[in-house]
This record gives sequence, C-alpha cells and structure tokens, in this order.
Amino acid sequence: MLVVMKADATAEDVVRVCSAIEALGLTAHPIPGQSRTAIGITGNVGPVDPAQLSNVDGVKEVIRVTRPHKLTNREMKPEDSVIRVGDVEIGGPDVVVFAGPCSVESYEQMSVIARELKARGAHLLRGGAFKPRTSPYSFQGLGEEGLEILSAVRNETGLPIVSELLSTDELDLVVEHVDVIQVGARNMHNYALLRALGQTRKPVFLKRGLSATLEEFLLAAEYIMAGGNPGVILCERGIRTFSTHCRFTLDLSIVPVLKRATHLPVVVDPSHATGQRDLVLPMTRASVAAGADGVMVEVHPEPERAYSDGAQAITLDMFEELMTQVRQLGPLIRQRSAVSL
Amino acid sequence: MLVVMKADATAEDVVRVCSAIEALGLTAHPIPGQSRTAIGITGNVGPVDPAQLSNVDGVKEVIRVTRPHKLTNREMKPEDSVIRVGDVEIGGPDVVVFAGPCSVESYEQMSVIARELKARGAHLLRGGAFKPRTSPYSFQGLGEEGLEILSAVRNETGLPIVSELLSTDELDLVVEHVDVIQVGARNMHNYALLRALGQTRKPVFLKRGLSATLEEFLLAAEYIMAGGNPGVILCERGIRTFSTHCRFTLDLSIVPVLKRATHLPVVVDPSHATGQRDLVLPMTRASVAAGADGVMVEVHPEPERAYSDGAQAITLDMFEELMTQVRQLGPLIRQRSAVSL
Amino acid sequence: MLVVMKADATAEDVVRVCSAIEALGLTAHPIPGQSRTAIGITGNVGPVDPAQLSNVDGVKEVIRVTRPHKLTNREMKPEDSVIRVGDVEIGGPDVVVFAGPCSVESYEQMSVIARELKARGAHLLRGGAFKPRTSPYSFQGLGEEGLEILSAVRNETGLPIVSELLSTDELDLVVEHVDVIQVGARNMHNYALLRALGQTRKPVFLKRGLSATLEEFLLAAEYIMAGGNPGVILCERGIRTFSTHCRFTLDLSIVPVLKRATHLPVVVDPSHATGQRDLVLPMTRASVAAGADGVMVEVHPEPERAYSDGAQAITLDMFEELMTQVRQLGPLIRQRSAVSL
Amino acid sequence: MLVVMKADATAEDVVRVCSAIEALGLTAHPIPGQSRTAIGITGNVGPVDPAQLSNVDGVKEVIRVTRPHKLTNREMKPEDSVIRVGDVEIGGPDVVVFAGPCSVESYEQMSVIARELKARGAHLLRGGAFKPRTSPYSFQGLGEEGLEILSAVRNETGLPIVSELLSTDELDLVVEHVDVIQVGARNMHNYALLRALGQTRKPVFLKRGLSATLEEFLLAAEYIMAGGNPGVILCERGIRTFSTHCRFTLDLSIVPVLKRATHLPVVVDPSHATGQRDLVLPMTRASVAAGADGVMVEVHPEPERAYSDGAQAITLDMFEELMTQVRQLGPLIRQRSAVSL
Repeated sequence: MLVVMKADATAEDVVRVCSAIEALGLTAHPIPGQSRTAIGITGNVGPVDPAQLSNVDGVKEVIRVTRPHKLTNREMKPEDSVIRVGDVEIGGPDVVVFAGPCSVESYEQMSVIARELKARGAHLLRGGAFKPRTSPYSFQGLGEEGLEILSAVRNETGLPIVSELLSTDELDLVVEHVDVIQVGARNMHNYALLRALGQTRKPVFLKRGLSATLEEFLLAAEYIMAGGNPGVILCERGIRTFSTHCRFTLDLSIVPVLKRATHLPVVVDPSHATGQRDLVLPMTRASVAAGADGVMVEVHPEPERAYSDGAQAITLDMFEELMTQVRQLGPLIRQRSAVSL
Repeated sequence: MLVVMKADATAEDVVRVCSAIEALGLTAHPIPGQSRTAIGITGNVGPVDPAQLSNVDGVKEVIRVTRPHKLTNREMKPEDSVIRVGDVEIGGPDVVVFAGPCSVESYEQMSVIARELKARGAHLLRGGAFKPRTSPYSFQGLGEEGLEILSAVRNETGLPIVSELLSTDELDLVVEHVDVIQVGARNMHNYALLRALGQTRKPVFLKRGLSATLEEFLLAAEYIMAGGNPGVILCERGIRTFSTHCRFTLDLSIVPVLKRATHLPVVVDPSHATGQRDLVLPMTRASVAAGADGVMVEVHPEPERAYSDGAQAITLDMFEELMTQVRQLGPLIRQRSAVSL
Repeated sequence: MLVVMKADATAEDVVRVCSAIEALGLTAHPIPGQSRTAIGITGNVGPVDPAQLSNVDGVKEVIRVTRPHKLTNREMKPEDSVIRVGDVEIGGPDVVVFAGPCSVESYEQMSVIARELKARGAHLLRGGAFKPRTSPYSFQGLGEEGLEILSAVRNETGLPIVSELLSTDELDLVVEHVDVIQVGARNMHNYALLRALGQTRKPVFLKRGLSATLEEFLLAAEYIMAGGNPGVILCERGIRTFSTHCRFTLDLSIVPVLKRATHLPVVVDPSHATGQRDLVLPMTRASVAAGADGVMVEVHPEPERAYSDGAQAITLDMFEELMTQVRQLGPLIRQRSAVSL
Repeated sequence: MLVVMKADATAEDVVRVCSAIEALGLTAHPIPGQSRTAIGITGNVGPVDPAQLSNVDGVKEVIRVTRPHKLTNREMKPEDSVIRVGDVEIGGPDVVVFAGPCSVESYEQMSVIARELKARGAHLLRGGAFKPRTSPYSFQGLGEEGLEILSAVRNETGLPIVSELLSTDELDLVVEHVDVIQVGARNMHNYALLRALGQTRKPVFLKRGLSATLEEFLLAAEYIMAGGNPGVILCERGIRTFSTHCRFTLDLSIVPVLKRATHLPVVVDPSHATGQRDLVLPMTRASVAAGADGVMVEVHPEPERAYSDGAQAITLDMFEELMTQVRQLGPLIRQRSAVSL
C-alpha cells in the first residue's frame, strides 16, 4: 500500500498520515521526492482498507501495491536514489568505479594498491577481509586484521572502503571499519543478515544471487530498506547457466530492466562474472553502455601472486586504460540514456 | 591428505598418528571403518610431505587427496554413514520419511498432525519455526514459540523434530529444541552458519542450494564435518533451470551420483521441488527408486488453509497412500541397489 | 476449438460435423474416445463462432481451446493413446523397453546384439544410421547401408526398428526401412521435418529439445499430429542446466506432468541424459516409478569398442538385470498409478 | 591438422602442399592471410603423421590441432574475416546494422520500410518469408511470395537482403532471392541444413542455439565452412536460463570470447534476446561496446500492427536514434578495441 501526498502537502500533513498508519498497527515509510512525498506502508498481513487513509489531509491518493516490492519500487519514488559515500555519489551523473584486490593480504599490499588506484581515478577501494570460500580449506581472509588494514588505508588515502560481511557475528566490527558493506551473491538470500543490515545506516552493496530472479533481487533489497536503511546499491555479478565460456553468465540486460523497476543505483562486477582478466575491459564498456551507474573491478599489481582469484584481476596498466575508457564513454552514454532509455 | 591405517592397527597406533599430524600444525579426523581406520588431515594450506607420516607404526599408506572434499568422500570411508536420531536410522536399511507442515502454526495444529502422521508411519516430524521468506512482508514463522511447540509435540509423540535454522543468532535456541537442524537451500552457501553447525553435535539436514553444483554441495557438508560434526544428511530439493512446468527441476540423477561420491545419507524433498501436490507421490516413488535414503514431504490436514506453501502440501489420505507405496517399493529397491548400483 | 459429440452420436453425425467444419475453411480432426468422439478444429487464424457448429446434430458442446496445443491435449482425449508397432503396445499396460547400440556399425554387430536383446526381453531395437554429430569431423553413421542392416535384422528377429531421421531428404528412405522414426533432441524445433513427418503414418519417437519447455515439446508433437499422423511418442532425455555431474539433467518430474497434460505415451532415455553407464539402471527404475510408459537405453556388447557414446552404453549383463527390475517394478507402479496419480 | 606456409611461399608451393594432402585421402583448405597462408586439413579420422607434409617445399610447420574446430579457429587465421555483401563489409571497420520487420507482410509494407530504413542508414534489410513458429497454428510466413517481395525491394533500394532458411527443400529458392541466408537459433543443430549451406557460396548468418555452448556454436559454423563456404557470420541472440525478466538472457560476454576464438564476424540481436522494445537501444549500445561487429534489430513502422513479435520491434524514430548512437559509439570502441582487447 502506498499513500501519495498532494504536491502542496506540508511536513505536518506527512507526520499526521504516518501516525494514522501506525495507529492501524502498520509501519509508515515516508519517501520524499522532488515534487511530492509518498509514504510506503508495510507490515500489513492482509489488505488494508484505503478509505482509512484517503480522507486524511494532504493525501492525494492511496494505491494498492500488488507487487511485493514497495520501497525499492520506482513507481513509489520516480527519482534516482543517489547514495553518498564521502565525496562519491553512487547513482549520480558519473560512472563510479570500485576497485581493489580480491583479498586484503597485508598492510603494505593495500597501501600500495590504494595509492596507485587513487592516482588513476578509482572512487572506492574494495578488498575482502572475510572471504566466502566454497571450500573450508581455502584461505578465509585476514578477518578483523584485514578490516583494520582497510581502515588505516582509508585514512591515508581518503578512498572509501567496501568490504564484505559474512555473518551478523561480525556486523559491529564491519560497521565500525568500512564505508560500504558488501553482501555477496551467496548471501543474497541470507535474510537474517539482510534484516540486520536494515538496522544499520551504512550503505549496502548487494550482489545478485547466482540464480536470483529480478524479483528476488529486489526483495532482498527490500529486506534492507524495510528495516529503515535506504542505502542499497544493486550489483549484477553474473548468473549460473549452462554456458561455460565464462565463469558465470553476465546478465547485462538486467541493468536497464532494474533502472526501470527501481530507483536504486545499479553496478556491474565484470571481474567475478567473467573470471578472465581479458574480458574485464570489454565488459566494463558494455556495462557502462547498458546504463550501469558503476563497475566493481578486481585489480592486483601482480595478479599471478594474488592469494585468491588472480586469473580475473587486471593489472594497474589495464586499470589505467579502463579508467580512460570509462571517462570517455560514461558522459556520452549517461547524457544519452537520459533522453532515450 | 588421507592416512590409511593397516587392518591390524591398534587404537594406540591411531592415537599416535593423530598426534603426529597435530604436531605438524594440522587437524586429524579419525574415520573408523569396518575393516580399517582412515585418518583425514585438514588444515594444510600447502602440500604436506607424506614421508612425515608414512613411517609411523600402523600406517599403511598416505594418499594425497586432490579433490577438495575429504571428510565427505566415500573414498575415505567406503561404508555408508548411518545417522541415528532416537530410534530412527537415516542412511540405514529403511527408507526414512520426514513429514509435516511447512510452518508451525499453533500447538493444536502440530499436535493433531503429529499424531496423525505417527499413526501412518512417519519417522520424523518437520515444521518451520523460522521461515526464510523471499519477501520481508510474508509470514516469517512463529520463531521461539514455534520451537517450543515442536518440543512439546516431540515429547508427546516421540517423533524426532526437524526444523530450520536461519542464523547463528538462534543457534542455541534451535539446538536446545530440535533433533535435526535443517539448513535451507538459500543458506547452503552461508559459510558462517555451516561453520557454527560444525561446532554442534546435532545432525544437520543440508539442502542443496538452488544452483549448487555437486562439488559445492559436498563442500558445504565438508564445512560442517570439518568443524567436527559428522552428522550430515544431504537433501536434493530441486534446482533452478529454464524449465517452468514445476517450481524447480528435481535433479534426481544426483542421488546415485551422491551415493557413489559420499558416504552420507541422501534424502529428496519432492514437495518443494515440484510445488504441486499431485506430483509428490510419483516423485517420491522415483526418489526411492533412484536410491534415496529418505524423502521429506509436506503434509497438511487442510492444505487450502496452510499459512504457507499450501499448494504443495499433501493431505493425510495422500500421505497414507505414500507410506503404503514407500513400504512396498523401499525394500525391493534397497535390496536391489545393493547388488546392482 | 474442440467439438465434443454426444455419447450416442452416430458415425454419420461425426462425418456431418467434419463437413461443416471444412465448409468453414478449417480442418477437422476426429478423435474417437471410449465413451464419445471429440473433433479438434485447426487452421483457424482468428476465433471461430461456436454457434456455427453447436446446432449440428450430435454435437454436445463446442469448447474454445485457449491453450495452443489441441490434438495433444488430454482434455480433448482423456484416454491414453496406445501406439501399436507390430505386437508392441507403447502407452499400454506394460513398460516398453527400447534398446540397442548408439550407432549401427555392421550387420554382424546388429545381428548379434538384436538376438541377445530379444532373448533378454527388449521390445524394440534402436540403432542410429544417420547420426547428428556436433562436429562435422565425427563419424556420421552408415546412412542408407545402416538402414538396410536394420531392416535385415528386423526381418530376422521380428524386433521393430527405431532409427533417427535427420532431414526431409532421407524421409522416404527412413519410412521404407524403419518402424518408428526418431526425431532427435536437436531437431525438436525443426518444423520442416516435423511437418513432413505429419504426412507419414509411421509412429514418431520425439525427443525433447535440450532447452524445450513443456509447451514447446507438446507443440512439436502438435506439428506432427496436425499433419494427420496421430502416432507420437514423447521422450524426455535430459535438459541443459548449470549442473555438470551428468551430461544433461534428467527432468523426471516432466513425466507425471506430461501424463496429466497429454494422452500421448511418455518414454525416458536415461542413457543420453546421464551419459554414464552406472546411472542407467537407477534412473531406469526412477523413470518407471515416476510413471513412464517406457525407457530407451543404449546397450553394446563391448561398450569400450563402440563407435560413439561408449561411456553410456550398458553391457548385456547390465541389460539383463535392467529387464528383471523393470519386470518387477513395472506392474507394481502401473497398477498403483492408476489409482493414485 | 594445420599446415603453416612460410611467408615467402609461392602460390605453386601452396598448390603442391594441397596436392600432397589430398594424396593422403584428406581435404585441404587453403586460408590466405595477410602475411602468410595456412592450410587446414580435414577429413582425417585418426591422427596424420606430420612428417608426411613438413618436408614439402614452402612449409614452415605442421601443427596438430586438438580442438575440433579448425576452419573457424583464429589460430589458423589470425586476421579477421570480412564478409562482403554488395558494398557492405561485415567484420570490417564499421559496425553493421541489419534491420527490418520480423515477417514480410506485403510488398507495400516492405517497400515502405526498406526506404525508411535506408534513409536512416541501415546496411542490410531483414525480413522473414519462412517463419519458424513454435505452434503449427501460428502465421508461418508468406513463403516464396515473401522472397519475391524481398527480391523486388532489394532491386529498388539496393539494400542487401537477409532471410531465414528453414529446410533444404527451399534452399534453391532462398539462394536465388536473398543475399545472406539466415539459420535460426532453432536450426543451429540442424546438421543437414548446415551441410547443405556449406555447398552454396552465399554468406550464412548463423544464430546461436538457445542452449548452445561456445564450442557447439563454432562447430555449427565449422559444418558450413567444411563444405567449402567461408562466409559465416555468427549471431548471439540470447540463451535459455532461469532468468525471466527478458525473453532470453543475452550472453554478451560471448562477444569478446568469440572474437578471441575465431576470425569470423560476430553480430548481436538484442530484439529477440530481450523481447522488449525499450531494451533494444541500451543493449545495442552494450553490444557495440563489447566489440560486436554489428547488430540485427527488428523495426516496424507500426509495431502494434505487426503480424509477429510486435512487442520487440522498435519504431522508425527509435531506429533513427539507434543509428545516431551506433555512429557515435562505433568508431570510439572499434579503434579502442584494436589496442586494448
């Protein structure tokens, strides 16, 4: 259920409607927009009678939302959501580049790579401290030490930090150290984790599950938003199909479909999707051309010596070329897509 | 790495080898078999020199295990693992039937259904207290109250209880109340949860992820076993494919492949796989015929009034027929597969 | 559009309705049933006015069929279609076993294997003369010579012959020599071939395409039936999914779904689906248990010397065991499924 | 097996090597390159002894090709193959745009649309005369009349014609009227058709099968080339996966993988892949950005009145914008990919 306020409704009107909603035992989610405010209603088990709200002052109309995603729905908030992290705007006019190694390996490694990436124009620094590994016998990340390294490197370089959270057990630790919390593809359906993230106010970088449909992906974001955290960044990272020429099948057409369905920013990870260094650059270009708000790429100064996923990490030279191309392509596409998408 | 002990090695020999393994900074997992004991070694980052162990008394040979699954591997333990829960043996000579409603709805509901199922021959009672729901706005289960209901019903009827754990936050609670802890398909890759379950001694009912490969499935079990918990039951419950005539595609041929690859019991859930009441009976038959050690089915006395997944729940009459057929088919197949699989 | 005749309608009534249908520029397909006759109408581009037919003598009702499959639809013909080939009834009370090598290699090979298979109870003999090979450089089959060998062996043993047709160019040749014409998975969407087969009166063994949905599968059968050939046998042979533990993913739950949707017989090919000799027996059992009317299996006296697909061919000893199990399981299931499916 | 000639080998040397190959009962396929000629060898069942050829004058080396695709292999012909159709170069410096309606509906329709498309810069005209329809009751195309219309429109406008061939029965007819023969996704595995096309000298536009792997796709092209027809254009048009937000999943990362594996031109069809008009433009941009040599798009002046697939046809205005963007993006990418792919 969605309450659309009149364009000239006052802040008091909005508060009054929220109170009326809560008096019904429901939860109100005011969503301020450019021209008017909408108020999402969640918590209803059965249908709510619209008449109970449509006569409150300032209400233009009450819409039954049949689709289960409400807070993520662009129909409820037509303007793009822009997630601000330090000086970086994700979902804004510029294509944002998240870059870094797969795993945090040491302070020296991260410090060197962060400065190199910053010099080449990266906007955020990624690095795994807790690693979700298919085998219990693989390197599982440096854990808390990795987070401290990331924190230190952020303080040195000013680059905001993105790192993955695997369990609610480490939530406080991760919240303390990182700027954007990543939820990996294998945890997209981990509803306990999503719910806990809804209670924080850190932006969440939510990767699509290996076999998640569009609706499941949006509902995972909905879990976070329903908890009160509006900062969700969606990331396409490849899906499981019969096709074996790449590690996963990058489902790029989800980018314009997501941009149509939701106001949240959409980022693509061509490194994990393809698993092959040589494909990162062409698929970065394709992602930007499809309308992505950003890309996340793995970079390693010496890929052959990486602790994990070296085959997909690009070198610093390749990253420099990638930034050049993103800077050239980005403005062209983003101005275009405004008129033609 | 796997140490195979001589057939006449003594218990002291085994202890001595385990000590030698641990002196190398590794973890030893003795796996007693019918004719001899094997000792799995985990915790090695790089290769271990076999010579360090092959001269210890009682050691027959030291085998490099290249496949990442060790503890789940039938090569390491040729005999079937039988998981005992109360009087029930899972993986033993009889086909085991797990039955119950999707969600625990009330004490009355569970009490009635448990007695009806027991009268018809069900071996374990399933029921969801914590429900993993795709939408944050769907019924999420009764939580702790649901577990208490299950506990009470077990005490009344003697039927062991299977219920799902969604998060490490509820681990103690679930361990306290249930006999077998279920990990749902959406959490098969939740390594933090798997690791925590490795620390318990309750059997784990591990459902295959929606797009998990055989190897990933076995490695998820490996996470639990590597923590020291040998009681893992594998469950095929349908995978995500293009095919839409059923909710998921039941991948029955994984049953004989798993039976060949691992010593763990293999169960099939035709209810979630098909999503259609009418298909539960034929696919139960097919599961047993393929060699499954058991099936898990959803039963509801009034499916049309179930809180969740009513379309796939069978009625009590259908369940009675299912038990009749399982009793007829089971012995026939299980005696056969001993000779011909 | 479907015309349902009254139970006491005469043969003349049926002829009269067919004439009325054809006077409208449409095609009538009388479908005699146990209790009454139905007449399928095809050829209509837009909707037909039911009033034009509902007043003709003997007509009970005229039903708009919204589903695109008409002639294959069980709603139009509730009784099972039984396809008779020589003395064999496919879709009748017994489970029918199609067996033979992947490719016809020589007269000696086929003659020996046919006698061995017949002695063990096989009902039909399969063997490829024209082979659809992924690579142009692989063995493509003996062609016409292969058909002549099959013909000679049928004459010797009395076993009806099933062999694959790859192109309308060889249609006459194949019709001349074989008893059942196979359409392989890779040709399920070859509409020119299906249409040509509709003009013959030889039964067609139609394999499901590698990524065909249930509806596409039925519509491929519909192409053949719409041409006037009622003898279609449907065969599930595994689909393409991400899952790699078998060559394809055997989608066994399509068996009961097909039996519900269509009156045509449904057969399963566990050899091509799994690609592994050891899995043929358990998946044959599972197919029969799921309600399949038959199985097609590859058998080779010396699998390691087969020209093609040796890894999936079972030996004669395995085939003997398979027949024993089918004879034991078949009656049990088929009597059961009558009451419980 | 591949013979690489010395850079200074003469035409006579090449002829001599071809004769030597054919004396061995094999087939020689000379592949002239910029700097040197390679000669592919096909027809060998078992291995060929390289010594039989390595001493012939002009031979630099003889390479065993283990991969089953030889003629399509970029290792055998490092330079891009450019397919010339009239004045159009497919695989050359410019991005080529194939455009037109799904089906040929009438002369007037095609004549109008061809002039409109030409005015906006389309390079080739597509239109279906024989339509592969899932249902036998759907519009199947105008057939020969459709081909005659296409022929007439080509003569009027000079736009080369692309149209689909469904069966060897219509091969002569299609060869007579069209400039590029399309093989649809559903016929990619129709080896009889591919083989027949190998005997023609018309370029073939080969669409990837719905569930074809990269290797199967290249081997389908290999069938055509092995017959002696070097003019194959590969087209990615979406694959079957679990994902339902688009009709198919456009597997764009196959574009750079194909460009690396083969010298053949690679085109993308975003219309069939997405099935949605609004997605054609962003996915065209993404295709070009990924390195595609061209795109095929469906255009209809009045999509809502199209006989088939209207939902995916773009309007003439959208096509004009698409051409503008392709002209802007194409040169930027194609110059880049030369240096960075």
